[in-house]
Amino acid sequence: MTETVHSWEDHGYLATYTAKNGRLPPIVRGAEVDRYWPTADGRLVEYDIDEIVYSKDSPYQNIKILHSKQFGNILILNGDVNLAESDLAYTHAIMGSGKEDYCGKEVLILGGGDGGILYELVKLKPKMVTMVEISFSYQMVIDGCRQHMRKTCGDVLDNLKGDCYQVLVEDCVPVLKTYAKEGRTFDYVINDLTAVPISTSPEEDSTWEFLRLILDLCIKVLKQDGKYFTQGNCVNLTEALTLYEEQLNMLYCPVQFSKDVVCVPSYMELYPL
Amino acid sequence: MTETVHSWEDHGYLATYTAKNGRLPPIVRGAEVDRYWPTADGRLVEYDIDEIVYSKDSPYQNIKILHSKQFGNILILNGDVNLAESDLAYTHAIMGSGKEDYCGKEVLILGGGDGGILYELVKLKPKMVTMVEISFSYQMVIDGCRQHMRKTCGDVLDNLKGDCYQVLVEDCVPVLKTYAKEGRTFDYVINDLTAVPISTSPEEDSTWEFLRLILDLCIKVLKQDGKYFTQGNCVNLTEALTLYEEQLNMLYCPVQFSKDVVCVPSYMELYPL
Repeated sequence: MTETVHSWEDHGYLATYTAKNGRLPPIVRGAEVDRYWPTADGRLVEYDIDEIVYSKDSPYQNIKILHSKQFGNILILNGDVNLAESDLAYTHAIMGSGKEDYCGKEVLILGGGDGGILYELVKLKPKMVTMVEISFSYQMVIDGCRQHMRKTCGDVLDNLKGDCYQVLVEDCVPVLKTYAKEGRTFDYVINDLTAVPISTSPEEDSTWEFLRLILDLCIKVLKQDGKYFTQGNCVNLTEALTLYEEQLNMLYCPVQFSKDVVCVPSYMELYPL
Repeated sequence: MTETVHSWEDHGYLATYTAKNGRLPPIVRGAEVDRYWPTADGRLVEYDIDEIVYSKDSPYQNIKILHSKQFGNILILNGDVNLAESDLAYTHAIMGSGKEDYCGKEVLILGGGDGGILYELVKLKPKMVTMVEISFSYQMVIDGCRQHMRKTCGDVLDNLKGDCYQVLVEDCVPVLKTYAKEGRTFDYVINDLTAVPISTSPEEDSTWEFLRLILDLCIKVLKQDGKYFTQGNCVNLTEALTLYEEQLNMLYCPVQFSKDVVCVPSYMELYPL
């Protein structure tokens, strides 16, 4: 399967694997550890996964943590690669790529069950970070990440409360409604919900309407000069990205937005954030 | 092939593709445009390639430039993904990750036929950059990149000579020997030769000996406080990386070295540089 101009005898793997003459790696069928996980745009990619570290089913989600030789442990929710220990680039990007000053600020995280954002935020001396993660999957996600994704979450998931953070194990929609009603506001809202968010009682029929409901509620709990960060989707899903931007023009109040594209190692595709 | 908690009717692609229940994207066989290219560690990955932009055979190399929707044009040499227009991270890393001051310096590039390093270097006002790219493939590589990788090389390949650079279309081994003999030295040597270098007249039997020959020659043409940059290989080829480091202890003079790992978007794997 290798091809070189110089031979390398027993010298190991200084190899250039090549597809020339059709010599591709064989597909492995029926293996105990599945190495094939599709990208968000539906391409087949083989990961270097060598171990199933954690696997649980909640009523709404299948939660897996798999070990990749190069990416470390990877959290996979419903077959969708969520975050690996290699993916600090994702966490930094969804926090504003190092351009924000979180010191002394009030921050709200929606989702973020892997603890990555929370762990990076508390290092920056915020006044208070509130993380709202839905309950019915959370205990399984938190247990898995706390045990197996410590490079991502450090010790921040060991307790639901710290000096400058609290984790609410609740559905974020009623929490946001309560905050909006009470007039409670934040300097930053970071929406790290899964691409298709889960709610205990979705009131809207379509995903887009549900997303807009969350967006509207987030804007309501933002201070006048507050900022909202979220992830988009992979750059190839241009239609979805356009539809997302259209939602931003349909909010109850006008908003400005900008976007960045980052390379998240374990996604094997580019992601706008 | 998609699965959601909420339906999205005709709203497009806000999809989470899932491998749950074995629903992976199908393998496409016999397509006109090959989307499957293996990673350096021999995994099968599907690229979003939609067009063959350039395809030539030199006596030693097959040279392809393929268009990827997300990565832009990708240079593929002998079936090995070399560089895409998305991969400025690679070029920056092999230049020292922005920590070096190239202003007024003498720089030697070995290989680098895509023009990426040369293009980024000349922006930094060096005294003179000499790039040595082997002749028998170069004209095809340069023609392809000049025409189709302009995001990478800009206009730098339009001429073999500029105010502060020259491109020598020669085998680097005799050039290095001449420089060493003449006592010509450089502040920086950047080795961007392919993982398995090509020479018109390899004098050594094994790849490692050949690599060490080039390394020894490079050290000879470095100034006392000069620096040498090169790429390693993907992080999973641990044996090759260890062997590489062992070579560094076998050079004619002692050297210090450090390494960095970067995510090169189109490689779909992590790379030490």
